Parts: sequence; C-alpha cells; structure tokens
Amino acid sequence: MDNDLEKMAAQCRTFTKEMVDNPYRGLATFFGLPYTESLDNLDIALIGVPIDLGVTDRSGTRMGPRALRNESRGVGAYNHCTRSTPCTAHRIADVGDVPFRSVYRIEEALDDISAYYRGIAAAGVTPVTAGGDHSITFPILQGLAPKEKVCLVHFDSHCDTAPPIHGCGYTHGSPMKNTVEAGLVDAEHSLQIGIRGSSEPLWEFSSASGMRVIHIEEFYEMGWKGAVKEIHDLVGDSPVYLSFDIDCLDPAFAPGTGTPVAGGMSTFEALQMVRGMQGLDVIGGDLVEVSPPYDHAGITALAGATLLFEILCRAAEARERRGA
Amino acid sequence: MDNDLEKMAAQCRTFTKEMVDNPYRGLATFFGLPYTESLDNLDIALIGVPIDLGVTDRSGTRMGPRALRNESRGVGAYNHCTRSTPCTAHRIADVGDVPFRSVYRIEEALDDISAYYRGIAAAGVTPVTAGGDHSITFPILQGLAPKEKVCLVHFDSHCDTAPPIHGCGYTHGSPMKNTVEAGLVDAEHSLQIGIRGSSEPLWEFSSASGMRVIHIEEFYEMGWKGAVKEIHDLVGDSPVYLSFDIDCLDPAFAPGTGTPVAGGMSTFEALQMVRGMQGLDVIGGDLVEVSPPYDHAGITALAGATLLFEILCRAAEARERRGA
Amino acid sequence: MDNDLEKMAAQCRTFTKEMVDNPYRGLATFFGLPYTESLDNLDIALIGVPIDLGVTDRSGTRMGPRALRNESRGVGAYNHCTRSTPCTAHRIADVGDVPFRSVYRIEEALDDISAYYRGIAAAGVTPVTAGGDHSITFPILQGLAPKEKVCLVHFDSHCDTAPPIHGCGYTHGSPMKNTVEAGLVDAEHSLQIGIRGSSEPLWEFSSASGMRVIHIEEFYEMGWKGAVKEIHDLVGDSPVYLSFDIDCLDPAFAPGTGTPVAGGMSTFEALQMVRGMQGLDVIGGDLVEVSPPYDHAGITALAGATLLFEILCRAAEARERRGA
Amino acid sequence: MDNDLEKMAAQCRTFTKEMVDNPYRGLATFFGLPYTESLDNLDIALIGVPIDLGVTDRSGTRMGPRALRNESRGVGAYNHCTRSTPCTAHRIADVGDVPFRSVYRIEEALDDISAYYRGIAAAGVTPVTAGGDHSITFPILQGLAPKEKVCLVHFDSHCDTAPPIHGCGYTHGSPMKNTVEAGLVDAEHSLQIGIRGSSEPLWEFSSASGMRVIHIEEFYEMGWKGAVKEIHDLVGDSPVYLSFDIDCLDPAFAPGTGTPVAGGMSTFEALQMVRGMQGLDVIGGDLVEVSPPYDHAGITALAGATLLFEILCRAAEARERRGA
Amino acid sequence: MDNDLEKMAAQCRTFTKEMVDNPYRGLATFFGLPYTESLDNLDIALIGVPIDLGVTDRSGTRMGPRALRNESRGVGAYNHCTRSTPCTAHRIADVGDVPFRSVYRIEEALDDISAYYRGIAAAGVTPVTAGGDHSITFPILQGLAPKEKVCLVHFDSHCDTAPPIHGCGYTHGSPMKNTVEAGLVDAEHSLQIGIRGSSEPLWEFSSASGMRVIHIEEFYEMGWKGAVKEIHDLVGDSPVYLSFDIDCLDPAFAPGTGTPVAGGMSTFEALQMVRGMQGLDVIGGDLVEVSPPYDHAGITALAGATLLFEILCRAAEARERRGA
Amino acid sequence: MDNDLEKMAAQCRTFTKEMVDNPYRGLATFFGLPYTESLDNLDIALIGVPIDLGVTDRSGTRMGPRALRNESRGVGAYNHCTRSTPCTAHRIADVGDVPFRSVYRIEEALDDISAYYRGIAAAGVTPVTAGGDHSITFPILQGLAPKEKVCLVHFDSHCDTAPPIHGCGYTHGSPMKNTVEAGLVDAEHSLQIGIRGSSEPLWEFSSASGMRVIHIEEFYEMGWKGAVKEIHDLVGDSPVYLSFDIDCLDPAFAPGTGTPVAGGMSTFEALQMVRGMQGLDVIGGDLVEVSPPYDHAGITALAGATLLFEILCRAAEARERRGA
Repeated sequence: MDNDLEKMAAQCRTFTKEMVDNPYRGLATFFGLPYTESLDNLDIALIGVPIDLGVTDRSGTRMGPRALRNESRGVGAYNHCTRSTPCTAHRIADVGDVPFRSVYRIEEALDDISAYYRGIAAAGVTPVTAGGDHSITFPILQGLAPKEKVCLVHFDSHCDTAPPIHGCGYTHGSPMKNTVEAGLVDAEHSLQIGIRGSSEPLWEFSSASGMRVIHIEEFYEMGWKGAVKEIHDLVGDSPVYLSFDIDCLDPAFAPGTGTPVAGGMSTFEALQMVRGMQGLDVIGGDLVEVSPPYDHAGITALAGATLLFEILCRAAEARERRGA
Repeated sequence: MDNDLEKMAAQCRTFTKEMVDNPYRGLATFFGLPYTESLDNLDIALIGVPIDLGVTDRSGTRMGPRALRNESRGVGAYNHCTRSTPCTAHRIADVGDVPFRSVYRIEEALDDISAYYRGIAAAGVTPVTAGGDHSITFPILQGLAPKEKVCLVHFDSHCDTAPPIHGCGYTHGSPMKNTVEAGLVDAEHSLQIGIRGSSEPLWEFSSASGMRVIHIEEFYEMGWKGAVKEIHDLVGDSPVYLSFDIDCLDPAFAPGTGTPVAGGMSTFEALQMVRGMQGLDVIGGDLVEVSPPYDHAGITALAGATLLFEILCRAAEARERRGA
Repeated sequence: MDNDLEKMAAQCRTFTKEMVDNPYRGLATFFGLPYTESLDNLDIALIGVPIDLGVTDRSGTRMGPRALRNESRGVGAYNHCTRSTPCTAHRIADVGDVPFRSVYRIEEALDDISAYYRGIAAAGVTPVTAGGDHSITFPILQGLAPKEKVCLVHFDSHCDTAPPIHGCGYTHGSPMKNTVEAGLVDAEHSLQIGIRGSSEPLWEFSSASGMRVIHIEEFYEMGWKGAVKEIHDLVGDSPVYLSFDIDCLDPAFAPGTGTPVAGGMSTFEALQMVRGMQGLDVIGGDLVEVSPPYDHAGITALAGATLLFEILCRAAEARERRGA
Repeated sequence: MDNDLEKMAAQCRTFTKEMVDNPYRGLATFFGLPYTESLDNLDIALIGVPIDLGVTDRSGTRMGPRALRNESRGVGAYNHCTRSTPCTAHRIADVGDVPFRSVYRIEEALDDISAYYRGIAAAGVTPVTAGGDHSITFPILQGLAPKEKVCLVHFDSHCDTAPPIHGCGYTHGSPMKNTVEAGLVDAEHSLQIGIRGSSEPLWEFSSASGMRVIHIEEFYEMGWKGAVKEIHDLVGDSPVYLSFDIDCLDPAFAPGTGTPVAGGMSTFEALQMVRGMQGLDVIGGDLVEVSPPYDHAGITALAGATLLFEILCRAAEARERRGA
Repeated sequence: MDNDLEKMAAQCRTFTKEMVDNPYRGLATFFGLPYTESLDNLDIALIGVPIDLGVTDRSGTRMGPRALRNESRGVGAYNHCTRSTPCTAHRIADVGDVPFRSVYRIEEALDDISAYYRGIAAAGVTPVTAGGDHSITFPILQGLAPKEKVCLVHFDSHCDTAPPIHGCGYTHGSPMKNTVEAGLVDAEHSLQIGIRGSSEPLWEFSSASGMRVIHIEEFYEMGWKGAVKEIHDLVGDSPVYLSFDIDCLDPAFAPGTGTPVAGGMSTFEALQMVRGMQGLDVIGGDLVEVSPPYDHAGITALAGATLLFEILCRAAEARERRGA
Repeated sequence: MDNDLEKMAAQCRTFTKEMVDNPYRGLATFFGLPYTESLDNLDIALIGVPIDLGVTDRSGTRMGPRALRNESRGVGAYNHCTRSTPCTAHRIADVGDVPFRSVYRIEEALDDISAYYRGIAAAGVTPVTAGGDHSITFPILQGLAPKEKVCLVHFDSHCDTAPPIHGCGYTHGSPMKNTVEAGLVDAEHSLQIGIRGSSEPLWEFSSASGMRVIHIEEFYEMGWKGAVKEIHDLVGDSPVYLSFDIDCLDPAFAPGTGTPVAGGMSTFEALQMVRGMQGLDVIGGDLVEVSPPYDHAGITALAGATLLFEILCRAAEARERRGA
C-alpha cells in the first residue's frame, strides 16, 4: 500500500474536508466510512453488535452501535499522533451489525456472533467491533479462532471473570474467564487495567489463571506510561486482542454505561494507553458497554468512538506490519 | 370491614398527613404502604416485577418498579372520586419484587413469575402488579389460574397478540395471544383499547379470536364514556383482569417507555376509563412498560402510579363486593 | 390612553419586531419589558418572588422567576385574541424581585412580601406576580389589603386550604385558607378549578367556607366554556384576584413543578379560561410553582409565561375599564 | 401497481417483521427504507434537508433529519387507517440529504435546495421532505416549479408570512409569503392551521393575500373534522402541497423545536387532519422544525416521523390516483 | 469479631452475589443493608437526613438520601483496598431517615437532628450519615456530644465557616464555625481540603480559629498523598469526625449539587484520601450536598455512595480497633 | 485606584455578601456586575456576543452569553489566588450584547462586531468577551486594531487556522488564520494549547506561520507549569490577547459545546494556566463556544464563567500595571 507522503496528505485533506463539511449529514456510519455488507476486498471491518442481553444491572447497550456511529462523525479522519490516515490508507468499511436470529436468547445470540466472526476470519479481515455489552468478546474470539492463543489487553473497571451468574455463564460478567477456559487466551500474558469497585470477590479466576490485574490504585502509581511498558513487556510479539469496556473511564467521562464504578481514569489516560500499544500485533479489538439512554450530549459515545478509532489504528498498523 | 364514616375520615386524614409530611423520606414503597414479604393476613398485594427480557426495542423496564415506588409517594392516600381510602380500609401491603432465578432466560423468569402468582392465588390475595415489560401478564394469569376464563380489559397502543418473534413466543408482543390460547382469557368478552401504529399486521389474532379492538381513532369517536359503556356491556358480571400498558398514553404523557407510539390518549382519559370500571369484578391487574431511563422528572412513573392506584381501587372494591 | 388603531398597530409592529429580532439577546426581563426598581409612573408591575420555603415535596421554585423571564422572550408582544398590545399600551415594567431579609425563615420572608405589596398598593400599581411557591399568595393579598373582600379565581390541582403542616400554617398548602380567614377573600364567590388527586381530605376548609370547587372530572364535564360561565356568574362585578398554580396543568404540559398530579388539563384549556375572564375586575394575579430543575427545554416556563401574559392582559383591561 | 390483497398482506407482514425484529439495528433510514442516491425508478423520494440557517431563536434543526430517521424505525410498516403499505407498494427510497455548497450562506443553501428539487421534478419523483427549518419550503416549491399554482395546506403555530427579518427575506419566518409572491401558491385556496401566539402582527400578508387562517381557538371550535372539511372545500381537486411545522403541536407533544408556542394541538388531532386529506391531489410535503437538542427521549422526532409517514401516504395515494 | 479468612471470603462472596444478582430489585437501602429503625445490637448506623433548608443557592438536597440509597446498589459488598467486608463483618444497618417535626423551620429541624444523634450516642452506635445539606453537621456533632473535642477532616470547596447569612447562623455556610464555637471541634487539629472559589472572604473564621485550610491549588502541589500525610500529622490518635461535601469534587464528577465550584478534584483523588485515613480514630462521618434534581444518570449519587462506603469502612475499622 | 487593604476587604465582603445572599435573584448580569450600555467611565467591559453563525457542527452558542450570565452568579466576588477583588476595585460593567443588524449573514454580523469593538477601543475600555462561536475573535481584534501586533494565547482543541470552509473564510474554523493574515497577531510569539483530534490536517497554517502549537499530549508531558513557562518565555512584555475555547476542556468538564473532542484537560488545569498568565500585558480576552442546549446542570457555563473571571482578572491587573 502506497505511503507516499504527498498522496497521504491529499487523502487526509480530502477526507478531513468531507468530515468537516458534513458532520451531521446523511446516514451515520462509523467514522464516515463507506457502508457495505460484503467482506470482499476489505482489510478491516467495523462491526456493530447491538445487544444488551448479558447485562447485570442497567440495560441499554443494544443502542450502542447506533450512538457510536452518530458520534464518530468528527472522529477518524486523521491520527495526528501517528501521522496516519488509516481510513483512507486501508480498505476499511462499516459492514453493519451482526445479524441475530433472536434477541431473546443470549446463548443463541452469542452463537450468531461467533458464526459471523468465523466469516470474518475466513475472509481474512481484521475486525474492530462496537458493542453491545461485554458478553460479546467471548463469541468474537470463538469465531476468530486464532491459531495460537492470543494475549488479551483488557481495559475495564471489572475483571469479567465471574463464575456463572443466575446459572448463566455467558453474561457480561464472565467473557474473560470463558476465553481463557476455551483456550483462546493466554492468561499469563494478558492484562486487565483499571479494575476497582466492590465486585472484587467475583474475580478470583483472574489471579488464579495468572492474569496481570492492574487495579486503578496501582495504575495511578505507575502512570499510563508504566502501564504501557507492562503491556509491551508481557505481550511482546504475540498476537493480542484489545478489549475496552467504557466503564474503565470514570463516570464523569462515561456516564452512559450500565455498571459504572466511581473513581476511574480519564479519557486522555485511556487514549494514551491504546496509543502506547503501537508496535503490538493487534489482531482485533472491541469497544463495549456504551449505553446511550444514560448518556448526555453524546459524551460517552464520543469518548467511545475516539477510543474505537485508536483501536482501529492499532489494528491497521499491525496488519500493515504483517504485510496483510 | 368497618366502613363507618367517621373512622374512615380519621384514617384518611392520618394517612394523608403521613403522605404529605413525608413524601421524600425513608424507603419508598408503593403508595407508602407497609412492606412485608409475607402474604399472611393480606387482602391485596402490591407486587413488583422488574424485568425487561421481553422487549423488542428500547429496554429499561427492569427499573420500572423502583421508579413507580418512588413516584407513588404523593398518590394513594384517598380516592376522591369514590370517596374511599383503600390503602387503610383493606389489608394491603407492598410485598416486594418477584424473585428470579435468572435474569438471563426469559422462559425461566416467566416460570418464576407464574410460580410466585400461584402462591398469591393460594393465599387468596388479590394481586396488583407493577412491571416490568408486558411479557409478565401471561405468567401472572397462568399463576392465578382462575377457575373460569376471565375477561381481559387491556389498554395499550399494541394488541400484543403477535406470533412468535425471533422464534420466541413469550416476548412483550404476545402475552394476550398466549393467555387466550392457554384458555385463561375469554377473548370474545375482552377488549383492547387505544390501539394504533404501524404494527397492526402483527395483531391478526385479536380479531381472529374475537377480541373487541378499539383503535384510538374509534376511541376518540366514542369518547371515554362510550368505551366505558362497551366495557360494561361486554364484561358484565364476569371476572375481569385489567392490564394497562403505559404506552397507551401519548408519548407526551408517557415518554418513559420502550415502544412509544405517537397519537395516544391523555392520562385523564385513561384514568376516567379505569374509574369507569367500578362495579366490575376485577380480580387483579397490572401496570406495565414504564421505562425510567427514558422518563423525565418522573412524569411517566407518576402517571403510572396514579393509574396503578385506580387499578388497586377497582380490585379493592370488587373484593369488598365479593365479601372477601 | 390613546387607543387609536394606527398607533397601536405601529406600536405592536415595533415591539414584535424587537422581540422577534432579539429573543436571546441581552438581559431577560418579563416579556422584554423595561426594567426599573421604581414604581413611579407605572400602571402595572411584573414582580418576581423567588422562594421555595413553603414547599412540601420537591423544591426548586426559587429559580422560577428567572426561568419565566427567560422563556417569556417570545411571549407578550401582542394578544391576538383581544387584538391588544398591553405591554406598549400601558405603563408596564419588570420591577425585579421582592427583596428578602432572609431565605431561611418562611414567616419573615412572607412578611417581606406583604411589606413589598403594601408599597405596590400605595403606589396604585396593579401587581402581576411570578412565583415562587404558592405560599406567596397570602402575603401578596395581605399587602394589597383590598378595601373590600376580593373574589378568588384559583387554578390548581390542590385547593391549598390545608390546616397547618408540621405546625406551620404558612406553607404552600394553606394560602387560600389563610386569605379567607384573614378576611381578604370572599370564599362564597371564589372558585378553585382543576382540583384532583389524593390530598382531598386536606381541603375540608374549601367546602366548609363555601368555595366553589370544580374538580377536574367536573371540569371536563362542563368544558372550559362552562367553567368560564361559572366564573362570571359567581364573580360578577366584584374585584377578583387570579392565582394560577402551574400544576393545574397535566405533568405532560408542566413537568417542571414540585407537586405534580397526573390527569390535569391542557395549556390550551387553561389559556382559554384566563382569556374567558375578560370583563372581570381583575385587581392582580400570580403564576406560581414553576420549578425549573424539573423542567425540560423550558416548556413549563413557557406555558407559565404564556399564562402570565394572559393574566397581565386581564389586569390591564380591568385597569383601563376602571379608568386607572 | 398490483393491489392484490394477499400480496399486500404478505408484503406488509414481511416488512412489519423486519421492522419489529430490527428496530435499533444497522443504519437508520427513513422508515427503514432502502437508501439510494439515485432517483431512477423511484415513485417517491424521502429527502433530508439538514439546515438551521433560517431560524430566529433556538437553533438545532440541522440535526432534524438524522433524528427523524432514528425515530422512524417503528413507524411506516403499515397504515391501518387506510389499510395500505405504501413503503412496499410503491417504489420509495431514502435518497439522502440535499447536498449543500455552503452551510454559511442561507441564500446559497436555498439555491442548492431549489436546484436539487428541480432534479426531483425532472425525474418525475414525488418528494417528501424532512427538515431542517421552515425556510426550506420556498426553495422546494421553486425547484418543483409546478405548472399551475398549488394550494398550500400549512400546519403551524406561525403563519410564516413575515416581511424580511434583519433584512433577510428568506428566513423561516417568510417562506409562505415568498411562495405566494413567486406565483407558486394559490393563496386564496390555501389554509394555515393552528396559528397562535404573540407574533400575529407579522402575518398581515396572510389575510392580505387571501389565505384562510385558522387560529387554534377557531380550530378547537370546529374540531379537526371541521378543519378537514374546510381543507377539502377550499382545495378541491387542485394540486396541493402539505407543509407541517412541528411547532403546530403543543410543546408537551413537541418540546424539541426552536420557537415553541404554548397552547397547541395534540399529535392525535394533527394526525387526523393529515389522514383527513385522503383524496386530495398531494404533490409533495414536508415536516420541518424538529430540533433534537431540545427533544427528550425522541418524542418530538417520533411525532414528526409519524406525521411524515402520513404525508408520505397522502403523496402515495395521490400518485396512484394520477396513475403515476 | 472473627477475622478468619475463609469465613470472610464466604461472607463477601455471598454478599457480592446478592448485590450482583439483584441490583435493581426491591427497596433500595444503603449498600443493600438490612433496614431497621431500632438501634439495638448495632455497631454502625447508616442514617439519612433529607433536608435542604440550609442552602444558599440551588435546593434539592432533601432528595439526597433516597438517591444515595438507589445508587449504592452496586457499592459496598467488599473493599478491595483493605480486603474487608464491613457490611457483613459488623452489625450495620440502614436505620432510615431522621424524623422531623418540621420541614419549615431550620432551627427546629436541626434540633430534631441533634436529638436523634443523642440517641445514637446513647446507644453506643457509630453514625455514618447521608445528607441533606451541610447544615446538618453541626447538630450531628451536638447530638454526639463527644467527651473531648474532636478533630475535623472536612472535604469541601467551601470552608463553611461563614458568619450568619440573612441573620441565620445555622445555614449550610456555617456548620464548621458553629462546631468550633460550641467547643465540639478542635480547630487547631482540623483540616479543610479542596477549598476554592469566590467566597473566600466569608471564611475568615477558619484561619482565625487555626484550622488548616488546604486550597485546591495547594492540594495539587502536594498531591493526595501529601494531604493524607498532613491529616495524619495533625490528627494523630485523636478522635476525628469526617465530613465530605460532594462539591469538593469538580462539577464534572459531581454535577448534582447546589453550589458547585469549578476546578475541583477527581473522585479518585477524593477516594484515595478517605482511604488514606486508615488508622485514624474515626468516630463518625457524613456525605452531604448531593442534589438529585441536578444530577445526571446518577453519577453524583454514585460518587457519593462510593465515598460514603469508604467513610463507613474507616468508622468500622476504628470501632474494631477500639474493641467496640 | 485605592488598594488599601481595609477598604478592599470591606469591598469584597460586601460584594461577596451580595452574591451569596442573592445568587438566583433578579436579572443575571456577568458576575452580578452593574448593567449599562454606556462605555463612559469604564475600565473594563464584559460583552456578550450571542452568535452561532460560524459553527461547523452542532449549533447553540447563540445562547452562550445568557447561560454564562446565569452561571456567573456565584463567581467573581473575590480572587483568592491573587487576593484581589477586580469587580469592585475597577470600574467594570456588563455592557450587554453586541447589537447585530442581521443574524443571517455571517460577514455582516462579523462587521457589526468589529464596529462595536472599534467603539470599545475608542473609549479606551478593555474588553472581556463571552461568545458565541469562535468566529468572533477575528472581528474583535479587527475592531480593537492594536497599534502593534499582539501575541495570541489560545486555548482550544482545534487550531482554528483552517482554509475557507464551504467557501467561507470566516467560520469558527479560521479566526486565528485571519488574525495573522490581517497583521493583527504576531504568529511567532503566539501559542495554541490543548490541540488534539482528527482535524489536524486543516491546521497547516499554524506551523507554517510559526505559531507554537502545544498538543494535548505534549501538554501533559510538560504539565500546566511548563505551559505557563512557555507562555511567558514567548510572550514576554508584548501585548497579548487571550482566547479560550471551552472545548479545550475534556467533554466531561464541558459537555455543552458544539465540536467537543475527547481527551482534553481538566478545568483546574485550564484555570491554573490562565492564573499563570499574571504579569502579562493582557489587552483583552474571550471565552467562547459554550453551547447551552448541550449542557447539563449548567456545568459547562459554570466552568466558562470561572475561566472568564480569571481572564477578567488578568485584564484588570494588566490595566492597573499600565496605569490605565
């Protein structure tokens, strides 16, 4: 793919102009990208998974993809930290939302997700996903079925490694446990960052399985740079999946979510960590748990869309490095 | 039960004083009633069913019972239309929320509801229920298992007689079909009032089964008095269950709901119809589909609580007439 | 005062242009009127009384006058029902808010109000007041100290004739009782319109004193024209004070109030009644109980400002008839 | 076009199912219609005009088309009043938003609109438009350039026949004057319904030009049936353009608008009037002035989308009658 | 009290499960604790004081206790920083709200509070209080009547040591001055942290009496660790009362309060300071000034509930150390 | 001007008392200052510029000045960082809003602004301005027409040095380019701080012209003290104009703005930088882009008013140093 500077500048100017000229016009797609339901000739797919069947408290994340599309209108033209324009430099599209047979049976819905991502994997496309509640990360990784275990870099206020809740092992409280138990994730080279709050006793699996859990208190001791260093140290060259639960942010930055926990990080700190993941072999990622009914003026969706763009950038860079 | 006027006046003064003095104090129960999880020595039970597993669009009704309790603080001391004080004249309590084994499997949750209402029926208590989405009406009636078919008086913008959606026959789109098919409801002496909107083709079962469907256009032709007359004509002395979906009201009166339909009735008109049901043999009722995340300043919950109080009054009067 | 049609048309055009051109510019005064703290050379004074010391439930009416000023920006240029332009045809000003010695002691604050209105009466100015909670109506009438008892036309969902609450006889639940007991109001030629809800037992004084109480159910039987006829029949040529509690409207029309009661009237119906009071000898009036923290998009304040304008028109017409 | 009942029922069932199954999935188009920017092979085009350059007070209508698309998700599958399914029975698409050269110069933007609608007219497509502020009605009609003057049926709280404001004759206060002066509209066979508020002196042109102005007070005297009758009497068989300003509704029903006027009609009454226009030769219509920043829970956009659907139905019926 | 690890783990697992399973079910008590109005057999009491009589600007804190109960649903199962489960390891209950004789006379209400806390002191119970406005801290300490002066650790944007306002010395602007003047607080070993804004000239008493005032600018120089060190240095082993005004946080973190001041600290920083108070002899504490009408999505109440839980933990630890 | 400490203390006490006593009373002016439209005998003028003609995305800043006046009620009595009382120590007034000939033509409106500021300059008054969108900074500086080029200290998330958008060179995306090109600003001694987001390619002019652009990432490396040092180093003794776009803050701190960019600074950090500009020769400043329709509980307007007060303080100090 041509990285000639002149061309890139022209591309980004055109795309920026388009975005600036028309932020509220027409149909909202992720970052203003073209919309296509076909996976042909794509490098990266932006995928919506509108579901809230897995929540334990306040629902509403089924409205997440639409809100993220709406608020991504001013995001995505250019990444000034990396001086790159992934949306024009790669073949990227908004491929729509995962089709569900049912919005009433969580297991069936999760099966639909894994089936869809099997198609993504088969097409050789890198997926960047907008949730939906956090239960979707397990079937996404099931569908992708990476040849080797992947490392997980997981930003959240909860570890999401709970035992079954109400007899259901597939809620938004358990995806990380499920991915490890299914042999998809290499727990000992995975990190969970931003953890806090009263639900700690539910997360015994995290330490038992060897995950590196960075509580918010420790995070503020080491700073985002320290966290970035740990990520690189632990992940190295291994393939890595990036999962960002918006409730990792403090409720001031992300009121629009279902299980907010006070005392989280700022959007800036979160962005710096995702930016700090440059060089890692990111095979995909998701941004989950935006719950529009609890949002105000779109600020949660905007923070989410901005993080989603950085995840997209990491996926694009890794793909480029792999020569894919 | 003593109906002596002096005593009633004293009762209602005391209760009113209590309500006026303390509207925002302490724990919120329905109408400020005593809270007990025991059904012993009760005539009528106010029951919460916090669930939104059955919705097709915007979720949030799981928060309904709590919001209805909160906004019922200024409602329920006295019914000036009937000059009665049901909350003190009868043995009535807030018995809490139906316990669920799971908030992840709708069928299991609905089974929990029917099991709970079997207990209600066994205790000889009249249930008045605050939802939750409309899927709960079917298991409520299953649990009550009336000896003879009951008439249904159903206020809604949707008939809720849809065939299975996404392969699930127990969503909030089908309870009325289910009750008829289960032999619980006498369709030919049942009414659905306030119906409107684009989903009409889903409701073929209503006319096929012989229900009287009063669309909103016809409702405004006959007026609420005409509708009340039809209710009495059709129901007569038969036992009747009253189900009120808050989206029967126009979204101006009830913004806080999941599938609002423009062009509905006013709260006053709805109240007059429920008041007009005096004299019917009401065996129970429910007020469903209040979705607090979409409410503003509690106005939907307040309208809901006020309608719930009128339903309670009809249940109390009927019970008194039956000498129960 | 000159009523020459040409001049009036020119006046209203100029004033309308000013209002249309500049609705969001500069300091917000009631209806865009000039602001002056002097009562000299005034016919009518628009007065704010920012207080919520008398409320029983949700507070916030202390913010009422500011919100009413803000939302009155598009109201008041012209009354097309009466084809008049009171704001330019009379000497009218926004005279600011009643100064309080204390916002902590309700009795002292009410004394400040009555003192202020003694000044209004002494200056021969007709007061039109924006509350504030309803406790202010009693000290307003105390201050005005009309030579003969006045009739009261009172729109509300509550009669506001309660006995002392918490040992305080001057809350927003009692002003109408106080005015009658103080010999300021002729109860037998007064009306309370729109009454409803559970607090009925508190209002025994209304019927005991001979007030005409039109409950909302009766109101909808007679229609607003019937209510207007009763007002005229009962009031006749006597001096009349008009008090409008915004919670007379249904919460759909007025969510921003402290003690909303479901099942009220529409803004249109309310406006028609105040318009129907043309010809009465209105000596002043108030619009109370707008609570901005519970409002949305200013709709309650806008309804309030529109009603306040009609009250102003009635006061202006009466003053003109009296040759004042 | 085939009207075979079986087929229609099948169509509407399929479409309804699609709508019910997927209300919050994927990209939001008007009524879930296919999206295409081509006008080929279309009968009717749904067009967005995202602009608020013409407003006099609160801005925000540039966000209107997107909100109307979002809230139209549950609207449009079936019209039970006419037992028709226009969205499947006709070739209808969401053709996107009018492209603007500039969002900074109102005249230039209005020229863009008229240019776009010249294309619509040339393609023989019937336009149904979602605004945007009301200034767009004039360039729409300019672009359509009907061979003979059309009648205007105009629902609004303002007549929109003002002289230039701030020296600009093309604001949202003047479109109706402009259409008459440009010889596009037959004033003497046009109606303006719902008019009220303080800006009356601005609308002298309406009566001067012979328009029938039905103020809200007169509207409530005649009822919506009376208004429908007048519309038919005045319009007869002439071509008619239907323009609906959402502020015709009371702010309780439509808080999300820029220049709300208290005391308006209900959504139901408005719907009945648009439904009552069956049989008229509707050549197009618009729904304007939805301002999402002031909306709550989407109720204004929902009322607007529901009215837009009825306008669409009238346009489809007329087209069918014309054999187009 | 048994600290056996196994048992604690079991306790916390059970309690966590209960909290996670049922966050929105039933009546909301503080942290899901049992509700009892009796003080018998209690170590610590969670007490609501629903009052806003003492505010100077925006009211609404009377709704604070109910909102704090609602949002405490996901808080309180476990303190992972201290690895403790105070809610199950101690005898703690929600004892309801302080009963008031009057909500109209601030002095009388404050007397009711001091009377109530005399009962708390007599029962040997440690109080943890949820306001209400800040005026309550003085009567709380009056009621507790500690044998020796206590140190005060006070988080706030205001020093609350103002002279009488409007002639009232008991508003929310003066409690800290009152406690010192009443000989309840040892000013020279007390701290006020987070102070900022324009009202500085009102707080001369703070420096005059020897309190350590840490303005927000100084706080950010020393960091929360520096502040924690100063607290320990100054307080040492003395008994200490902890009072947290939510407006200490920046309005981004706590919009729902009456007198917000821009430029405050984050929730995380505040939590770390309260956590840093481990080892101090905390005899009680309060969290005040949450004003729900100005909150959004419950984020202020959630931050407040989380801080309240940390206060509770400090009180529980101190009690345990004292062998109480 | 007298700086005698006693007198200042008395002044500030009186003013503080006035502000504390009456935060919600009467007409809201900036900081409670006297209102006058005359510029005579003034040192500093607070000026509103209610306009949103220059925005590219969400509109609403035309409502900014009114919201800033409302929320400035608790701000401005005293600056405890500088121990000064500018509002009483100088001759300062709220002089109202810039009068516009048109709110429809941006160029004409900007001409009105420059004309107004020519009057300000002629009167020798220092202007402190509340916007309005950012397009106003260019005509302000045009009007002031400083004898020598001024340095610009510009806080923003966007550089605002874009080429013409939609053919319009005067939008809120270009003012800083315009001021440099017009020879008003010395680019090489100007700074832009807080820059971030996807629109970077639009800002080529900034680096081309020699402006110092401190992106948010660099800002967090150097800290606010580092930024303050750079400001002093670059500006030195030169005259400086200070322009603060509220979207420099993170959307958590300033949701109420039109083009928010995630990942910004806190209000505290911003305040410290403006405070750090003590000693600079500030000739005026503006606070722009507060968009009230997107605000919640006034927190954006409050942050804006607090920043505006600090700008005012800098202007007052500089004026005092100049002996003006």
